[in-house]
Amino acid sequence: MHPFDEALALSCVSNGPWIGKPHANYTNMVGPFGGLTSALLLKAALDDERRVNDPVALTVNFCGGLSQNEFRIETRLQRGGKYTQHWSAELHQDDEVKATASIVFGKRGDVFSHQTVTPPTVPPPDACDAIPKGMPLRWIDSYSFRFADALPQFTGKAFDELQSSRSVLWVADDPPRPLDWLSLAALGDNFFLRLLHLRGSLPPMGTVSLTTYFHATADEIAAQGDYPLLGVADAKRFHANFADQHMELWSRDGTLLASGVQVAWYKA
Amino acid sequence: MHPFDEALALSCVSNGPWIGKPHANYTNMVGPFGGLTSALLLKAALDDERRVNDPVALTVNFCGGLSQNEFRIETRLQRGGKYTQHWSAELHQDDEVKATASIVFGKRGDVFSHQTVTPPTVPPPDACDAIPKGMPLRWIDSYSFRFADALPQFTGKAFDELQSSRSVLWVADDPPRPLDWLSLAALGDNFFLRLLHLRGSLPPMGTVSLTTYFHATADEIAAQGDYPLLGVADAKRFHANFADQHMELWSRDGTLLASGVQVAWYKA
Repeated sequence: MHPFDEALALSCVSNGPWIGKPHANYTNMVGPFGGLTSALLLKAALDDERRVNDPVALTVNFCGGLSQNEFRIETRLQRGGKYTQHWSAELHQDDEVKATASIVFGKRGDVFSHQTVTPPTVPPPDACDAIPKGMPLRWIDSYSFRFADALPQFTGKAFDELQSSRSVLWVADDPPRPLDWLSLAALGDNFFLRLLHLRGSLPPMGTVSLTTYFHATADEIAAQGDYPLLGVADAKRFHANFADQHMELWSRDGTLLASGVQVAWYKA
Repeated sequence: MHPFDEALALSCVSNGPWIGKPHANYTNMVGPFGGLTSALLLKAALDDERRVNDPVALTVNFCGGLSQNEFRIETRLQRGGKYTQHWSAELHQDDEVKATASIVFGKRGDVFSHQTVTPPTVPPPDACDAIPKGMPLRWIDSYSFRFADALPQFTGKAFDELQSSRSVLWVADDPPRPLDWLSLAALGDNFFLRLLHLRGSLPPMGTVSLTTYFHATADEIAAQGDYPLLGVADAKRFHANFADQHMELWSRDGTLLASGVQVAWYKA
């Protein structure tokens, strides 16, 4: 069994609450990295027998770091319609709300289709430098990150001059795993906070809220298999303790599979 | 009293539930336009005496169109911390959930600040063409829209060829009203759906989920006064009944006050 699937194992009697436990392979500074938490919240709604259609939008609010203890996810079908279904979810642990989420599922059909954007042109994954294994944060080892530009430095030393906050890289589960909604949700939070790329230094920081839109239809996800996704991430403004970040995840053939934004807190 | 403040009038005994009624000046196809609904949900949390600090992130999920009846907003303080406060909110009407929201407030301080982006260079508001008054949808008359590019057409007739999905325009309350968090929240949904700009035609469509990040600190909002904001909006992918949209709202002096994304459903 792939570690990601182990990490997503949730038990329940019937349609929740869903019980799980943080998986050691996805540990970040405090608790699991946000992408896993996002995937867990999505999975609880996805596995509910009342759920119909495909994920369209996922917003996760990170209220507090998770401990290594068991957690409970409660989902609520807020509204179902002909075309969309709206869910809310909460992750509880240690008698506190650790994360909340809203999830939209939608009926996808064969109608007008148009993509206004194109991915950057970069060398194939094998020709890009990978972040070496053995990182102190376990979740980083659970993915392969192959940067088209320079590799990020994790020394914590500030650059002499601010650098670009933009990254272009190939990302994939490591070991490889065929793409599905859950891994796509996790990959949406799979970019290092832009402050690291911009400043080099590592002040206390963390994602506060994350929104991911799933543009891909099921056929496009199946076509991707376990080939790395091309990721692009950047930020617009760092100001007064909060910074935004936006990302795109592209298929191997230049289809935009997902896009998203997040806002992160930073201390100094 | 400004119509926007009339529209935001909410009554409650103590910290909710908050009772309100849709205002005729902000009517869209079905119920009020989403920006007003977003501002109402933000206001309910903002007015709660337990709320501390400034809005950082707002996600609103539109579950169903509002009627003209009274509605009730219920808020919940999910988690408070030293730096952030997480709220959930629900708007109920006619015994249904019509909208849900998550709202993050954050403590803003004088730390590292950097903006990576710049606004487009455009003529001042007075030199741009305005959408004429007397539009069938009342909410449009409640704002001034001055387009740096060509004005959108509301004929419903498809273009012979797809046009650009990008818009650059000056937006403001009409009559003018000094900017605050609430009007900034409403302006975040103040862009026509990109499909209109791209195709010209008007199939059934509507915003499903909206996320707005407030980059502005209180001093920047005060400095803006009632001068129009420069808005930029575009989309990345229209596919299988859903399309994303992203926007920026700029101050008169080139400061990014807010950015955001939304996903909209379209029928054909």
